[in-house]
Amino acid sequence: METETMIEIRHAALVTNNDRDEVVRDATIQVKDGKIAYAGPGKDAPEFSAERVIDAHGNIVMPGFANMHTHVPMNLFRSYADDLDLMTWLNTRIFPAEDKLTKESAYWASMAAMCELAAAGVVAFNEMYFFVDSIARAARESGLRGVLSRAVVTPAPGVGERMLAESKELFEKYNGQGRLKVFLSPHAQYTVNNGMLEQIAQMAEELGTGVHMHVSETRGEHETCMKEQGMTPIELCRKTGLLGVPFYAAHCVWVSEHDMELMAEFGATVLSCPKSNLKLASGIAPLEKMMRKGVRVTLGTDGAASNNKLSMWEEMTYASFLQKGTTYDPKAMPAAQTLKLATRYGAEALGLDSGIVEAGKDADLVMIDTAGIRYTPDYDDVSLLVYAGSDADVCMTMVGGDVIYEDGKFAFADIGEVKAKLAEYAEIMKKI
Amino acid sequence: METETMIEIRHAALVTNNDRDEVVRDATIQVKDGKIAYAGPGKDAPEFSAERVIDAHGNIVMPGFANMHTHVPMNLFRSYADDLDLMTWLNTRIFPAEDKLTKESAYWASMAAMCELAAAGVVAFNEMYFFVDSIARAARESGLRGVLSRAVVTPAPGVGERMLAESKELFEKYNGQGRLKVFLSPHAQYTVNNGMLEQIAQMAEELGTGVHMHVSETRGEHETCMKEQGMTPIELCRKTGLLGVPFYAAHCVWVSEHDMELMAEFGATVLSCPKSNLKLASGIAPLEKMMRKGVRVTLGTDGAASNNKLSMWEEMTYASFLQKGTTYDPKAMPAAQTLKLATRYGAEALGLDSGIVEAGKDADLVMIDTAGIRYTPDYDDVSLLVYAGSDADVCMTMVGGDVIYEDGKFAFADIGEVKAKLAEYAEIMKKI
Repeated sequence: METETMIEIRHAALVTNNDRDEVVRDATIQVKDGKIAYAGPGKDAPEFSAERVIDAHGNIVMPGFANMHTHVPMNLFRSYADDLDLMTWLNTRIFPAEDKLTKESAYWASMAAMCELAAAGVVAFNEMYFFVDSIARAARESGLRGVLSRAVVTPAPGVGERMLAESKELFEKYNGQGRLKVFLSPHAQYTVNNGMLEQIAQMAEELGTGVHMHVSETRGEHETCMKEQGMTPIELCRKTGLLGVPFYAAHCVWVSEHDMELMAEFGATVLSCPKSNLKLASGIAPLEKMMRKGVRVTLGTDGAASNNKLSMWEEMTYASFLQKGTTYDPKAMPAAQTLKLATRYGAEALGLDSGIVEAGKDADLVMIDTAGIRYTPDYDDVSLLVYAGSDADVCMTMVGGDVIYEDGKFAFADIGEVKAKLAEYAEIMKKI
Repeated sequence: METETMIEIRHAALVTNNDRDEVVRDATIQVKDGKIAYAGPGKDAPEFSAERVIDAHGNIVMPGFANMHTHVPMNLFRSYADDLDLMTWLNTRIFPAEDKLTKESAYWASMAAMCELAAAGVVAFNEMYFFVDSIARAARESGLRGVLSRAVVTPAPGVGERMLAESKELFEKYNGQGRLKVFLSPHAQYTVNNGMLEQIAQMAEELGTGVHMHVSETRGEHETCMKEQGMTPIELCRKTGLLGVPFYAAHCVWVSEHDMELMAEFGATVLSCPKSNLKLASGIAPLEKMMRKGVRVTLGTDGAASNNKLSMWEEMTYASFLQKGTTYDPKAMPAAQTLKLATRYGAEALGLDSGIVEAGKDADLVMIDTAGIRYTPDYDDVSLLVYAGSDADVCMTMVGGDVIYEDGKFAFADIGEVKAKLAEYAEIMKKI
């Protein structure tokens, strides 16, 4: 797994994810300097002096996933607290555990998440948490594309201002460095006051960056906002200027039709986390309705404590099946559309030049091993991927032409060391 | 993978699945003559002259899954038809394809399903289809415990009677042979007339066997029954005598409170298929409500054409998360209860002597490889299994003391041959 600048993949079934949902059998993909130089029928491939040739015979090549909402240090809290009321979960388990987090443990937990993401075919993630230096360190080492943000809350005077100043420092330090970007992040309407929402909108405009925020995740927060502020959280985001910058709204389970119209009008992106929304008993986001109103919908996993997997494969089936099952329309969110939500739409929303496997795009792609019993017969590759595929089928993940994961091995991490470190830090959490 | 009569598994984390949800660290499991001779702390294990010792250090041993509703020959139809209206799906795709099925292709498709089930930790399956001889052949070769049934429909005079006679022959031929049982199976209320339902109830009583039937899967069938017969499908099952025999009701998405009370009173078993119910746009079964009323609820995958995986791991999370997300109670269907629905409750419902790993029970168990990044930290093994586990983590499946699957290899099948045969028969389906 050394870094080669010229890689040729031969004999793949290529799921292009383009507008025509083209699938090319016996395809060749040529990668040069981090970009796709050619992707199409093997017989039409130009001469190419590859440093490495990968025989993908029988395998599928597709764009990698964009995990649009996650909190990677929470990998330290998987299975730490389940099946609890939200307030019990937060106050007796998650908050005390987060209080014990350190720069080092946040780094190792983030490294565990990088491994989980890379091994499951993710090429880009959109993150919100604290300990951003630790996350940045893990992200840079992994080679994944990461959009980081420091969650801002305003529990007491001065706190939000300090966090926002920190956010600006992080932006200056990391934005545009390697594969990193930095957004601003008001945690949520119920944890951030209106004045700070306005300040964040202004700063995002000055910096020319995006804003990542939890929006209308639970019925309670949505209705409390309406009662106390006379408007929905999304309407408040318009009022405070947040919809005027690139806006990334996580969850949106309880948004109104008017909210959807506003998000469509302002070009906001919905980051839906269907599994987390069910597990935390928040509900089911009306994705079909949003998309019919022209809202850009993408998918994310949320953190490992509330899912409990960082698996975009599972988010795809949950998203599609929940829309079918709650609209009573089996045609809702067909396979090809669902794949786009999990890959291309996320990449486009983050301003990445990938999500489609075609010449000129960044080489952010994954290879799927089809040796398992579920890939035969092969009537429809896209259906197989979306409805029968699994994390475990990913045999190679490439970001910007770099192979960061292949056949169980990581280019950037010793999995044994990562697990040992996590186990060590978990002992601290077990004593709480 | 030869058949040994005495196997000792050492240093496992044992998820017993017993009433106290005990997990034993550094456990030993001794298997003799198909039964568990000892399961408990390694330090207390008696002397045992094992023919094979398995070092399970770091791995989890748990009871295998009971897949309570499936149609195994439909493995030939995975990804053959998705995202379609039910009637289009049936009339233009599934029925014409089923018409091309043969004894041989049904056998190979069933073998593919046996591989999929065994590799994903299933030890018993409850089946309804036709080509039962082909299914029985595959089931017997696999070593899985199979409860087979021939679906009976009454589209024209005489047809149902012929199918019921065939069912009786199958019962006499296979019931109690090796690990097979045979139930009777009226396909559904909307495909079987009342007279035949009564005949089936009588025959089940005479034979001392159970009845497996689709019940209230869609709102349409439930409401049509009420309109045409003046009662719900479950009420009709009582009237026709079906509730008087061991009754296995698949789906039950639209059952009324009174239906639930009847099922609890008569001891019927619900076979819930949460993923299939979403994908086919049928809805979400009210499992929490059923269980509160005392109904025995178990889980199944349905066939590969309507899921599209035979994965009890995924049914567990769908079942639990859907109940949490639709009752708005994150405490609904906690991990340990969910594991029981997928394992022990199914085994008990089928009259099997397994579902708990303890001395005296049949050795129907699976071993889970915890090397993956998701099993660290290890705060709670049951939470890890139910919320973070996957098919791919299964490294060994044992039925009645026989290791039928281990580390990617099947004791009963050449996976390359099975795939080649499936691909061959798929060519016929592609021409329809």
